[in-house]
Amino acid sequence: MLHIQQRLDRLRKALKEKKLDAILVSNFFNILYLSEFKTLTENERESWLLLTADSCYVFSDSRYLDSKVLENNFITYLLISPENNLINYLDNIFKKERLVSCAIEEYDLKLYEFNLLKKYLQNISFIPTRQIIIRLRETKDNDEIQKIKKACEISDDCLKEVSKIITVGMMEKEIAFKMEFFIKEKGYDTSFYPIVAIDRNSAIAHYDTKINGNEKVKIGSVILIDFGVKFQNYCSDITRMFFVGQVDTQIINTYNNLKASQQSLFQKGIVSQGKKLSDVDKYCRKLIADYELPDYSHSTGHGVGLEVHEYPKISSFSEDLSKKNQVVTIEPGVYFEGKWGMRVEDTVIVNEDGLEALTKFDKEPFLIKE
Amino acid sequence: MLHIQQRLDRLRKALKEKKLDAILVSNFFNILYLSEFKTLTENERESWLLLTADSCYVFSDSRYLDSKVLENNFITYLLISPENNLINYLDNIFKKERLVSCAIEEYDLKLYEFNLLKKYLQNISFIPTRQIIIRLRETKDNDEIQKIKKACEISDDCLKEVSKIITVGMMEKEIAFKMEFFIKEKGYDTSFYPIVAIDRNSAIAHYDTKINGNEKVKIGSVILIDFGVKFQNYCSDITRMFFVGQVDTQIINTYNNLKASQQSLFQKGIVSQGKKLSDVDKYCRKLIADYELPDYSHSTGHGVGLEVHEYPKISSFSEDLSKKNQVVTIEPGVYFEGKWGMRVEDTVIVNEDGLEALTKFDKEPFLIKE
Repeated sequence: MLHIQQRLDRLRKALKEKKLDAILVSNFFNILYLSEFKTLTENERESWLLLTADSCYVFSDSRYLDSKVLENNFITYLLISPENNLINYLDNIFKKERLVSCAIEEYDLKLYEFNLLKKYLQNISFIPTRQIIIRLRETKDNDEIQKIKKACEISDDCLKEVSKIITVGMMEKEIAFKMEFFIKEKGYDTSFYPIVAIDRNSAIAHYDTKINGNEKVKIGSVILIDFGVKFQNYCSDITRMFFVGQVDTQIINTYNNLKASQQSLFQKGIVSQGKKLSDVDKYCRKLIADYELPDYSHSTGHGVGLEVHEYPKISSFSEDLSKKNQVVTIEPGVYFEGKWGMRVEDTVIVNEDGLEALTKFDKEPFLIKE
Repeated sequence: MLHIQQRLDRLRKALKEKKLDAILVSNFFNILYLSEFKTLTENERESWLLLTADSCYVFSDSRYLDSKVLENNFITYLLISPENNLINYLDNIFKKERLVSCAIEEYDLKLYEFNLLKKYLQNISFIPTRQIIIRLRETKDNDEIQKIKKACEISDDCLKEVSKIITVGMMEKEIAFKMEFFIKEKGYDTSFYPIVAIDRNSAIAHYDTKINGNEKVKIGSVILIDFGVKFQNYCSDITRMFFVGQVDTQIINTYNNLKASQQSLFQKGIVSQGKKLSDVDKYCRKLIADYELPDYSHSTGHGVGLEVHEYPKISSFSEDLSKKNQVVTIEPGVYFEGKWGMRVEDTVIVNEDGLEALTKFDKEPFLIKE
């Protein structure tokens, strides 16, 4: 549990720099990050975490009494019940530790929760803050990297399986379902519902296979598969293209150029410690433009961790810099609306002088027999 | 789409009664209820809805341009883009319709969203409100009832399948996975991750089969299965008990008494229009106590609809009354900690003079061969 202690220490340091005495954490993923305490749902506010200079408390109800959080000695678990609600606990702790102010997560806290805190804890000044913890989560520690690596391995395995079963006549949703089954059968989870998009659907950047998903594999089809796996709460994210039988030469040429562009970002020095990620985004778009291919409307990449979309952002508007141990996606695409589209995406880790791919499934044009 | 127009009219009436000019709806399920507009995720704030006396607007981004909401003529779809953000749209509409106040959903809106609205729309007074729409959702219209009935049918079918496959040696998570597979294979979804709890785990009222789930079926086992299906966004919720081989007579007797208590609530006049639901809760607990069985720690039931937990609440603290066309669960239980527990649960509809079960899977003690 050393990594937990280190995460709490990093947060304490960040609070001190901002002259904040304490923080009341409400966000599900931030609580999971700081304490490894996990509730059944992400949205029903089943837990809270309070970090002060001296202590850390997790609050939750009796359903979680036997949870693992009790097993470490730098977090105190407090049971919420009709007799002891969160407000009572906070009131006592604030008095005991002589706190006069407490940061809250403005992006997460509901308006009524803020109003309740203000109403019942009038001696405390609650200070809305943004992104303190999510910015700590931007660079991954060793425990996180190992988990993401494993999630990436499982997604590679899933692609190997899927490449064996795609046949002419299969529907998009059938392929997606088989992938979900493959992942869950082994006791893992999906990072998000798999996107399987065939032919003109592959040109839709955020195609919803669950709601739509009726297009069938045909001879000559372009198939885009974008999905991810969760291993011990950590996500992977990967996109690969499959082509069925005799595919148009222009399509394969386009794919090879897209692949080469994506691969170029792995060259030493292109993405390295301290580089502006907006420049990385521009560099990738320029490579695509140099092949006389149209620009893509989405960003070039995003952080991956407990959530499948985290910081940093690799987009033209990004103000983020690349840092060692960020885990991000690199995912340029080429789309011809109404015809077909393609994307090549890896989950990668930022090293001192370049990127290392964590998803390793082959990128050679994957041809499926008719 | 008549039901949509009726829902908007009911909301307009509710707003008028509270002297509110307009409401800005942020909650995913409330937007789905009012417009049938559905985004990919429940939490990433991909859409908003504004209802005024004269108009209804849905705001979302280009991913949803081809969505069904465009097909009716009483909702205007407005595209959020870098050039036209929500604030700009609201500003224009408020000016055009000469609005000076607007209700917001205090239980749903994030603090930073409220702060942005206040900052950029200073001429409008934003009024925190609670539960206006969720209270309308408490009684179901015909379209909703048909969908819930179908969700209940599918869950009955799933139980039939599951009853055929349970054998000695199977793990809880294996049974849960097979149920999930059965449901998703047919193109439906689960209301929540199935709870499959064997022996002493069946005594834990909110057992998490996904995280735990390693207990195996043994000869003499008590197996609790609590799950639900979503059909076209509407949920079912059902719990049944299975017993393996020669089960202790005391266990079967307890089951029969629990079943009889649950069935008693279906008698004419017990739950009928205008009854206090706290009295229904007390009545059910009294039946259990009359059999000299211990009281259960959870509520006797809850509303079911777009969400698996909605209003009304059937608990001792409930201030809700029963009303025609509420859809609720009836789910008393008996738990012996560390030994075994059982629950019998149906999704039911409230009629004028009683309850009608929508889940119909047999309640006779289900004995699985050794």
